[in-house]
Amino acid sequence: MPYLSAYASPPPTPLPQGRKSMGGPEVERLIALLARLPGLGPRSARRAALKLLREPETKMLPLAAAMAEAARAVRTCSLCGNLDSADPCAICADPRRDRSLIVVVEGVGDLWALERAAVHRGLYHVLGGTLSALGGVGPDDLLLKPLLARILEGGVAEVILALGATVDGAATAHWLTERIKPLGVAISRVGHGVPIGGALEVLDDGTLGAALRGRRPV
Amino acid sequence: MPYLSAYASPPPTPLPQGRKSMGGPEVERLIALLARLPGLGPRSARRAALKLLREPETKMLPLAAAMAEAARAVRTCSLCGNLDSADPCAICADPRRDRSLIVVVEGVGDLWALERAAVHRGLYHVLGGTLSALGGVGPDDLLLKPLLARILEGGVAEVILALGATVDGAATAHWLTERIKPLGVAISRVGHGVPIGGALEVLDDGTLGAALRGRRPV
Repeated sequence: MPYLSAYASPPPTPLPQGRKSMGGPEVERLIALLARLPGLGPRSARRAALKLLREPETKMLPLAAAMAEAARAVRTCSLCGNLDSADPCAICADPRRDRSLIVVVEGVGDLWALERAAVHRGLYHVLGGTLSALGGVGPDDLLLKPLLARILEGGVAEVILALGATVDGAATAHWLTERIKPLGVAISRVGHGVPIGGALEVLDDGTLGAALRGRRPV
Repeated sequence: MPYLSAYASPPPTPLPQGRKSMGGPEVERLIALLARLPGLGPRSARRAALKLLREPETKMLPLAAAMAEAARAVRTCSLCGNLDSADPCAICADPRRDRSLIVVVEGVGDLWALERAAVHRGLYHVLGGTLSALGGVGPDDLLLKPLLARILEGGVAEVILALGATVDGAATAHWLTERIKPLGVAISRVGHGVPIGGALEVLDDGTLGAALRGRRPV
């Protein structure tokens, strides 16, 4: 069966020691850490490591230094929870932002996505997640009460909830609505445009803008 | 036209200063450097930076240290051109490898791909590219003569050319064939399986194995 045999799976080639790591333990460790980054799998992590290794002085060391520097410089904004090298962050410190308008998001990635879309001229509040009965996340595990404290300080006209359209996002919105409404502050949620079950962080700018403009009172 | 207007492009929202960078100059620089890695675009670089920034001590600093350590430790093998923290590299130093069989590749990525596929039990020789009339790459820009020197030292029974199926790969194979044949050493090239215009580095293990087994004398 020459035809079939040409397509048959070849017998395994006997090799001295089978598969092994490339480049020594330092390279192995670098590839393993790179492969944990979102967007990089084991194969692209190897390609990235190889690109960096080919030019250690001009590619690898600058990236390593940028990482160490960012880890040293960046902190959490004590007002809104954003990550920035300044505290308060550049958004909270900007006098041109409308301080009466607060968009509430789950994470810093959501805040960055809204800023990139340039669809909000007010401030933000990062909760650090959503309430989750299954995940055991209660109100004290998130920055919910600091948000209420910001509102009680006065000057806030409207709170816009930009949370994911998930069960936990809805539960968090409900918890906040119950407590913010009695304070006499308008509260709304972002409108149609956020896909059910989706994360804000990965949406395109147009959808993010539509969701913000299409917000509805709750 | 309420229906149409609901789908019309919205007017641009007036904003104090338009788009700006997130997280300060340190984060901006980190994202810019990450976005240059193969497999990461601007968006996934931001997500990667954010993941690292959320856990600077456990994620960012270990990766920065691994990069600095790899840049310090890794060098080019003086025998075959592989990148490794040892010189000679682990492959050249392995007494179980067949020293009479040399696979010639363009780059270290090709060598690593063949090793991962575990289809070769001999040694390697990394040329560092291919001859290119258009690109101005001549014989002295590659490690072609060191390969001839390795052969002249004796002990080599066969040289297998595992170069890309490109015009430049073929020109390089021709240059080597003309010089290796007179030395009385068998010379072959990897067989069918390498897609025309494709790079070895990204091939699957089965195709790499088939190409190596299906090599033909030149």
